[in-house]
Amino acid sequence: AAQEAAVRAQAEAVRRLKQDKADPDEIAKEVAKLLEMKAQLGGDEGKPKFVLKTPKGTRDYGPKQMAIRERVFNAIISCFKRHGAEVIDTPVFELKETLTGKYGEDSKLIYDLKDQGGELLSLRYDLTVPFARYLAMNKITNIKRYHIAKVYRRDNPAMTRGRYREFYQCDFDIAGQFDPMIPDAECLKIVHEILSDLQLGDFVIKVNDRRILDGMFAVCGVPDSKFRTICSSVDKLDKVPWEEVRSEMVGEKGLSPEAADRIGEYVQLHGGLDLIERLLQDPKLSQNKLAKEGLGDMKLLFEYLTLFGITGKISFDLSLARGLDYYTGVIFEAVLLQQENEHVEELVGVGSVAGGGRYDGLVGMFDPKGRKVPCVGVSIGIERIFSILEQRLEASEEKIRTTETQVLVASAQKKLLEERLKLISELWDAGIKAEMLYKKNPKLLNQLQYCEDTGIPLVAIVGEQELKDGVVKLRIVATREEVNIRRESLVEEIRTRTSQP
Amino acid sequence: AAQEAAVRAQAEAVRRLKQDKADPDEIAKEVAKLLEMKAQLGGDEGKPKFVLKTPKGTRDYGPKQMAIRERVFNAIISCFKRHGAEVIDTPVFELKETLTGKYGEDSKLIYDLKDQGGELLSLRYDLTVPFARYLAMNKITNIKRYHIAKVYRRDNPAMTRGRYREFYQCDFDIAGQFDPMIPDAECLKIVHEILSDLQLGDFVIKVNDRRILDGMFAVCGVPDSKFRTICSSVDKLDKVPWEEVRSEMVGEKGLSPEAADRIGEYVQLHGGLDLIERLLQDPKLSQNKLAKEGLGDMKLLFEYLTLFGITGKISFDLSLARGLDYYTGVIFEAVLLQQENEHVEELVGVGSVAGGGRYDGLVGMFDPKGRKVPCVGVSIGIERIFSILEQRLEASEEKIRTTETQVLVASAQKKLLEERLKLISELWDAGIKAEMLYKKNPKLLNQLQYCEDTGIPLVAIVGEQELKDGVVKLRIVATREEVNIRRESLVEEIRTRTSQP
Repeated sequence: AAQEAAVRAQAEAVRRLKQDKADPDEIAKEVAKLLEMKAQLGGDEGKPKFVLKTPKGTRDYGPKQMAIRERVFNAIISCFKRHGAEVIDTPVFELKETLTGKYGEDSKLIYDLKDQGGELLSLRYDLTVPFARYLAMNKITNIKRYHIAKVYRRDNPAMTRGRYREFYQCDFDIAGQFDPMIPDAECLKIVHEILSDLQLGDFVIKVNDRRILDGMFAVCGVPDSKFRTICSSVDKLDKVPWEEVRSEMVGEKGLSPEAADRIGEYVQLHGGLDLIERLLQDPKLSQNKLAKEGLGDMKLLFEYLTLFGITGKISFDLSLARGLDYYTGVIFEAVLLQQENEHVEELVGVGSVAGGGRYDGLVGMFDPKGRKVPCVGVSIGIERIFSILEQRLEASEEKIRTTETQVLVASAQKKLLEERLKLISELWDAGIKAEMLYKKNPKLLNQLQYCEDTGIPLVAIVGEQELKDGVVKLRIVATREEVNIRRESLVEEIRTRTSQP
Repeated sequence: AAQEAAVRAQAEAVRRLKQDKADPDEIAKEVAKLLEMKAQLGGDEGKPKFVLKTPKGTRDYGPKQMAIRERVFNAIISCFKRHGAEVIDTPVFELKETLTGKYGEDSKLIYDLKDQGGELLSLRYDLTVPFARYLAMNKITNIKRYHIAKVYRRDNPAMTRGRYREFYQCDFDIAGQFDPMIPDAECLKIVHEILSDLQLGDFVIKVNDRRILDGMFAVCGVPDSKFRTICSSVDKLDKVPWEEVRSEMVGEKGLSPEAADRIGEYVQLHGGLDLIERLLQDPKLSQNKLAKEGLGDMKLLFEYLTLFGITGKISFDLSLARGLDYYTGVIFEAVLLQQENEHVEELVGVGSVAGGGRYDGLVGMFDPKGRKVPCVGVSIGIERIFSILEQRLEASEEKIRTTETQVLVASAQKKLLEERLKLISELWDAGIKAEMLYKKNPKLLNQLQYCEDTGIPLVAIVGEQELKDGVVKLRIVATREEVNIRRESLVEEIRTRTSQP
């Protein structure tokens, strides 16, 4: 209070100086004094303002959201296990230098930890670099693993479209020296299986190859030193029109207009085996070693995808570039097409929900002797999928259960708390999922209402008479039917009535 | 190379100065010059040193460790679901101010993020404070939820004993205004169920109450202002002997020796209902309002635990204090006793594997109007449990599978890659977990060896003859038996042969 009075007096002094048309320097000095006083008081109101929120770009998941999330995870994990993957986990942060030089222009989005003494740490930006670090550190040359965990990017969030600063990645990778394109084809099969299984509507998986891109840049007359930065420009084609990308190439990045126009012709192309064959005959591209290699492997990939029966959803697309530095071969990205559901119309073009590619050089960057381990992998982005499913569920009438409780232990009269505790303890010990209200004398109506609200299918009611008769009254919530069950048969009866068909 | 030559010349200069018995100051100056030169070279070898490791106090989980971890999680999650809990998730970091003032002396262990512009953030230190923030933010007054996630503490790691800087907590909490001690008793039942289920050997759950502790401090003559800091001293009794704790109280914390000795008498006490009854008659304690309330509730708790049949493992222990500031009522901690297994003898006294208590004031600290939501909860510390199980597994002969693959698709001759791809695709689409080697022409022996190594029980072999006959040869790895199965019956046959009994 004394401090506040001082602030008021100081403010009055400033006001008077202004009225007197005093020297501006004098006023500025007095204003500075005033601001300092206020700052010491710790805020506008003289008390610290506390904001009750999660950090920017993050969210909580309540029980309903978690139920949806677990459905999605189950679909993804089932698929990864169907393909024989093991699972690993790594820490949420890495040594800062582990992440250095792996992400190109995106490195500025990495979260660093404060230097509190000891090592300099950063939150992981993806699961691929930690995976490569794990392989090099443990000298593993051969593994098929999945990893589902949160990653962190100081990006501009767009939460309604499922873009967060903390988000899950579900990664499946195959590391090892194998015959060409067999693991690569399996990664695409996995994306196809998961997106089909989740029933998100129509989708397309765009495929390209870094070697084809680099070969294309070379034959278009892009200098070697500009490959990566021109590649970053091409990567924007899914969001901005060609004209804008072209002017970035020519204006900001100093590419010749002729080279840009030649690129412009190639990046319009997309198709299947026919396009691959055509480009293999292209007089310029076919002369470039890298492009030829890439096109040859692309042809092999399409042959394998034909055997898998999934070429209908695959598009060889020369405009696909992918931002990350570490890709060396095939790259791909799955995009959801128009939503069939009216309620989620605003989500049209929700964009990429999965992506990946081959990165044969990344593990070698960590190995002291530079020994390479070829890798190819896919990352499923669950947040965008999740926001579609969440909106779809909200629009539908479906009621989603957030617990698995089979039975509520209830009482019809007062003074039966002890009997309820004894019965529920027996049920828990027999593996039955059971709840009770935490009241000494709850009303029967409230207990039944609780079952209606939470979807509990059965009520086990203890009462004076039932205790005497050695039975429990079992009520089926849906039908309101009630049957007396002998105490010793109760567990079996509950199991039978709640077993999933 | 020029720089290295300069360093060598400088080192030679130092050596000569020493030989000449030059002025020590002179030598020191030249040595400093030398060290600076070396530092500029960026390390001993003239190139930056890169350390391939995870950050201090953290670890990777490989497939074998993950298999153990998932077993433990399954036991814990089953129990939480059996008790009707919903599940939530919160971000890994919170606004720094959300964590401020919640952890007492432990606050110095919080990881802060670097200020990169925007909000000041910290990694969560536990799941309890984020839960309270979640309740206040969403105005939830009634929920039973679990949350399994990693938390972060800049503590001194002791990794062989399962103490990490990044570790999992498995939390179950009941929030809401209920009749006394019913939710509290359920939390203890849950700890009992989980520790029994995991078969970790004998354990004891120590129970106390913050009100009994505070009442005890009052009647022992501890000034109000010293309650929390003396409580922190008592908290160390599980690790250091009473004499040390006493000297901390008297020496560092300025408590009178008489008060300390009175505390010393109380904190030796532990027992059951009999001890509670005795303390309710204690001439000093029974006069203290807080202690009386605490003892009354403790009696009620033991009555409920008797109905649950678990008092055999519960010890009312006046030395239990628990470090965190936010507890207001019952507190408890589960400790593993001597290991029955010789191989893990070094783990004797692995210590606390679960803890928790009542915190009725925490949610109110976040509510703008201070509205309270009473809460009680338990946290299972999985790392210590995990390190016991990991060592036990290593000591045993048990071979643990890290995949669930049912069948390997193999070929007996060359040039059958396409046939293998077609068959495995059919199996995947039918939901069968199948793998194949990523080789064009793998040897049959290598394919069979892969099954032996990874525990795959079946091999589906395609060969020229089988293709002509419309069959697949199914080999049972364990018995080496081989049967021809018609292609259209293969899926059903694999399902039957690999269904869990």
